[in-house]
Amino acid sequence: MTVMTNANSKIKIGVLGASGYTGADLVRLLLLHPNAEISLLTADRRAGESYAAVYPHLAGRGLPDLVAIQDADWSGVDAVFCGLPHGTTQELIAALPDQVKVIDLSADFRLRNADTYAEWYGHEHRAPHLQGDAVYGLTEHAREAVSAARLVACPGCYPTAALMALLPLVGGGVIDPADIVVDAKSGVTGAGRGLKEANLFCEVAEGIHPYGIASHRHAPEIEQELSLAAGKDILINFTPHLMPMNRGELLTCYVRMTEGHTADDLRATLAERYDDEYFVTVVEPGVVPATRHIRGSNHCLIGVFADRIPGRAIVVSTLDNLVKGSSGQAIQNMNLMFGLPETTALEQAPLFP
Amino acid sequence: MTVMTNANSKIKIGVLGASGYTGADLVRLLLLHPNAEISLLTADRRAGESYAAVYPHLAGRGLPDLVAIQDADWSGVDAVFCGLPHGTTQELIAALPDQVKVIDLSADFRLRNADTYAEWYGHEHRAPHLQGDAVYGLTEHAREAVSAARLVACPGCYPTAALMALLPLVGGGVIDPADIVVDAKSGVTGAGRGLKEANLFCEVAEGIHPYGIASHRHAPEIEQELSLAAGKDILINFTPHLMPMNRGELLTCYVRMTEGHTADDLRATLAERYDDEYFVTVVEPGVVPATRHIRGSNHCLIGVFADRIPGRAIVVSTLDNLVKGSSGQAIQNMNLMFGLPETTALEQAPLFP
Amino acid sequence: MTVMTNANSKIKIGVLGASGYTGADLVRLLLLHPNAEISLLTADRRAGESYAAVYPHLAGRGLPDLVAIQDADWSGVDAVFCGLPHGTTQELIAALPDQVKVIDLSADFRLRNADTYAEWYGHEHRAPHLQGDAVYGLTEHAREAVSAARLVACPGCYPTAALMALLPLVGGGVIDPADIVVDAKSGVTGAGRGLKEANLFCEVAEGIHPYGIASHRHAPEIEQELSLAAGKDILINFTPHLMPMNRGELLTCYVRMTEGHTADDLRATLAERYDDEYFVTVVEPGVVPATRHIRGSNHCLIGVFADRIPGRAIVVSTLDNLVKGSSGQAIQNMNLMFGLPETTALEQAPLFP
Amino acid sequence: MTVMTNANSKIKIGVLGASGYTGADLVRLLLLHPNAEISLLTADRRAGESYAAVYPHLAGRGLPDLVAIQDADWSGVDAVFCGLPHGTTQELIAALPDQVKVIDLSADFRLRNADTYAEWYGHEHRAPHLQGDAVYGLTEHAREAVSAARLVACPGCYPTAALMALLPLVGGGVIDPADIVVDAKSGVTGAGRGLKEANLFCEVAEGIHPYGIASHRHAPEIEQELSLAAGKDILINFTPHLMPMNRGELLTCYVRMTEGHTADDLRATLAERYDDEYFVTVVEPGVVPATRHIRGSNHCLIGVFADRIPGRAIVVSTLDNLVKGSSGQAIQNMNLMFGLPETTALEQAPLFP
Repeated sequence: MTVMTNANSKIKIGVLGASGYTGADLVRLLLLHPNAEISLLTADRRAGESYAAVYPHLAGRGLPDLVAIQDADWSGVDAVFCGLPHGTTQELIAALPDQVKVIDLSADFRLRNADTYAEWYGHEHRAPHLQGDAVYGLTEHAREAVSAARLVACPGCYPTAALMALLPLVGGGVIDPADIVVDAKSGVTGAGRGLKEANLFCEVAEGIHPYGIASHRHAPEIEQELSLAAGKDILINFTPHLMPMNRGELLTCYVRMTEGHTADDLRATLAERYDDEYFVTVVEPGVVPATRHIRGSNHCLIGVFADRIPGRAIVVSTLDNLVKGSSGQAIQNMNLMFGLPETTALEQAPLFP
Repeated sequence: MTVMTNANSKIKIGVLGASGYTGADLVRLLLLHPNAEISLLTADRRAGESYAAVYPHLAGRGLPDLVAIQDADWSGVDAVFCGLPHGTTQELIAALPDQVKVIDLSADFRLRNADTYAEWYGHEHRAPHLQGDAVYGLTEHAREAVSAARLVACPGCYPTAALMALLPLVGGGVIDPADIVVDAKSGVTGAGRGLKEANLFCEVAEGIHPYGIASHRHAPEIEQELSLAAGKDILINFTPHLMPMNRGELLTCYVRMTEGHTADDLRATLAERYDDEYFVTVVEPGVVPATRHIRGSNHCLIGVFADRIPGRAIVVSTLDNLVKGSSGQAIQNMNLMFGLPETTALEQAPLFP
Repeated sequence: MTVMTNANSKIKIGVLGASGYTGADLVRLLLLHPNAEISLLTADRRAGESYAAVYPHLAGRGLPDLVAIQDADWSGVDAVFCGLPHGTTQELIAALPDQVKVIDLSADFRLRNADTYAEWYGHEHRAPHLQGDAVYGLTEHAREAVSAARLVACPGCYPTAALMALLPLVGGGVIDPADIVVDAKSGVTGAGRGLKEANLFCEVAEGIHPYGIASHRHAPEIEQELSLAAGKDILINFTPHLMPMNRGELLTCYVRMTEGHTADDLRATLAERYDDEYFVTVVEPGVVPATRHIRGSNHCLIGVFADRIPGRAIVVSTLDNLVKGSSGQAIQNMNLMFGLPETTALEQAPLFP
Repeated sequence: MTVMTNANSKIKIGVLGASGYTGADLVRLLLLHPNAEISLLTADRRAGESYAAVYPHLAGRGLPDLVAIQDADWSGVDAVFCGLPHGTTQELIAALPDQVKVIDLSADFRLRNADTYAEWYGHEHRAPHLQGDAVYGLTEHAREAVSAARLVACPGCYPTAALMALLPLVGGGVIDPADIVVDAKSGVTGAGRGLKEANLFCEVAEGIHPYGIASHRHAPEIEQELSLAAGKDILINFTPHLMPMNRGELLTCYVRMTEGHTADDLRATLAERYDDEYFVTVVEPGVVPATRHIRGSNHCLIGVFADRIPGRAIVVSTLDNLVKGSSGQAIQNMNLMFGLPETTALEQAPLFP
């Protein structure tokens, strides 16, 4: 673990793939970081442009111009955030200088099993030696490993929300890991800034629909971590829906409790687990988690409700997919990796309305 | 069954509680009805005003002014649509002249069991003698009874969407009625035009949250009908969510199949059941039901998908809560009650985008 | 003028460029037309697909599959609606069989002056002989010419809204044609279904911005018609804004009145002009035109308001850009060209909420 | 001017009327202020409740519970922000202890002329002796006076956006102050959290309409300041529109330039004026101001565009109505009043998407 002792020597940060929404939110948050400065921004198709040309809301902030990744100067860089498309990061990271710490926001190092990776992503892993080193960076559940890591694979947005709610319950044995339904609703930033008809305003506004039913790549990621907690291989139902909002996602998890447990037990299990956590809150009975209560912030809210069906409960988890589900958790991990207070640059309250 | 034989003698329609969104959509649709004319519009708080003062988009259509319900002249009225608040319709309907057919859009006559009604609505039923006569008007499943009825209780919007998908599956024995989760997402018209902070634009836009968890009044209604189909009392999970759209709702139903059945069997069961139905469509494999594909129309779309978990399936049902979930189904029932072609005034295609 | 005398022989319609939003709304409306049937749908990039594959909300309506335009069979076609990209329609229309009536929704035949066309569209006109024949189809102001036309150029959506409000005022001499500001706000369907970053949900939702300031192609079109009415060449200010809604546009026009006139005079001028018009309504004093009051319908609402600045007034005009601003007006023109009642298939009330 | 010399002694802040959206945004921003702490929150109707009960997104921040204003303990309070309804603040402020600095966000002290106040607000001013002392706190144009003030009247949101764009142009003599049209578009937070049908989700979503045409109370406020700059009394056109977004407003100003000036001159005038300002940016030619580029931040963007009509120009100004248009500017003023760096707690970048 590197401890930053000299406030004058800020961490030099590179953001790779800075033209996506995740890149923009990394920049937004890092601008408030007292111990970090952005020294490199890459975006192949926009190379040569100012960052303000791509994101006018970040004009006037003294940011470097965009460069192509092969033109990047790594000499002064202490850490990189990789927001590149899935499948493109592995060889790149393998080629980075050793002293550069890597916080990867793609899916490239999330799956530990090479076969599972190949099955879901359609090709063999291209840096299997790194795959073993990568730490799955669900911060609150991997703090020690993240602190010591050189390469952190940040969880997907849905897995972050799902695992925050379900890991303590599965690990605590209070729910049946073989009977979990996760119904997810997400804003459109989750789909990125790429040009797809499905993401046009008129295709999304005033409507909702499921997508990737029983085939979304975040399912095996959730299953990987829950299986570890359960001590056996499990499958889950995971059904995401696309809805008309920019940011935020809400997961409604339907679970069967193990013999003798109640919804209050589940709440108590979660509340105890997260009692000391700044970013994860188990809401009081009667409070309903809502995406607008975490918009723009690094917080995750979890609520537990008894079901009408005896023996069942409903666990609701919500976070901002671009912050706790992506850029915020990545910075949280960076803070750990550099021995900084974990909440640095992440204290902003949610933006409501 | 009354058969309309003379095109010149249109059915005289009263819309009670015409100032709500349901009333407005009844009027919108009835304006295109060749065999009906609106002769009475009531709204107690807006009595004396023109309908255009309440709904400017319906100006210039020759509609009668609003009157208070106690000032209504029933003499020429053949049928009334009741869109009054729950609990206020029972005595009113009991006092109507016998020749007036009643299509009730409130919840007042949906529950057949007096105790269940009292439990969920907080008071004894005020017209128990009518409760027995009332037909639960889920049109495609009650055609004969509706045709012969004087009083039809139109199902709630959520029950309509849920029962269209689940009734044939429970009735056909292909799913386990004791293991049904219904995760619902609804637009804001479902909450009506009343003044509540929760329905302000800024409280809804850019967000989603569940509400009425395990306590929504549509749960016992769904359970009533599914229990009849199952031949035993069942409970379901029903969890609605409020999201930023005007119209439409989408229900994602998570079901466990009975031994030996597959998702294809479920689809076949539904496709066969609705093969001849104009308003209910089981979508082809690969097509995903979306609220925007039924917006403004009387259609219901149902899709079936295999789950990752063996033995489980996902059934998605979507409709416009103000049309098939309310005003449209009510007119469909009226058409039956007067011997008219069922689709009259309901042929409009959805409005997309 | 062709008069339809035999209800059995429906007009055979071709929709060229049927994969755009305009095409979809033409189909939506034509499905309710008792005297027309769609026999041809073209879309080059989607040729071979069913229309339902492109627009699932129009599945099950017995529509022909999409064909490439060069594969179209024109033999039975009585009329075509052209919804092709600007600049591609001229040679195509020139090559159509003579008996086919043409209702063009592109900009290709709107400008009468060849130089103006070349200046704004970047190339010489490719069918100048037809340019002279084409009737500018602002229906309420060109009824006779449209009735007799073979080729009608439907006005752009903004020009339709602007001219409905301003033509009678300029023509009546009650406002100064040299001092007109038109501030327009439009939903996103106006930008079509093409893939552009600017039209992604996240780029539009929760925001507004002007575009095409002083350079939008609808400006010369408005100026052309107002200049004719004024009897001299005029320039206007036209500033459109893109905002987060699917349909609808609202134009706030700031005008200077000529000596001795008041806002009441302007309202009276407009009210008299449109007194007999089904689709154009001058709202009562105190009523404010709103896009949601015309959504999905062929109506245009106009309101007049006195300004705080003496001698000035504010004229507000609103319509649905896909209906009265495009597909609806096109069908209105078709009805005239075939001697049918002008409102056929266009009686639907607006969809609110 | 009070200079804060001891970082340990934070400014004690009271927020009066903390249950409105403006109050919530004050709290959101003040939570990041290193030199201030919130010691008092009032809200008469919610007195006794925790702040989290009113605004769950601000739970867990150590805020005091809400009290009724008559129960407030002023002893330790250094400054109050008043976010009370218009007309209720005057007597209250008059009764505050002298040592309490007051930053008023209501309209109660904005108008300097007693008659104008009475005309627009319907009653005589109730603290005329304070009216003279109050500083109109458009920070960038009143820095010195604000620094020395005890009572600052923060401008309305529309006046802030309008005056930022127009004051330097009128003051510089480059536009005709008698020919200004301001077409404004605003999100719904501008209307507050009160229960009004017009602000329900379904009345706003998917639409736009003007309101308060030629009668909005922000018009005399803009005129007051522009008249001072012009050296003569002027009237302006001001026409606001309500549109479906939470935050942000955009003003499109149509101006006539004085002899010999061009749009480039206007841009140069503004650019020079704001060259050193952190929060006000004149965008480069080719960049279009958009509300989403300032969402959640204290920034104001201004763009200048040549009109098609010779001698005219278009000036676009945008800001977040809850921040630079209200709470943010209020904190900016507080910073000045306490000798703190003006940008303290206001450095957050905009939240996009």
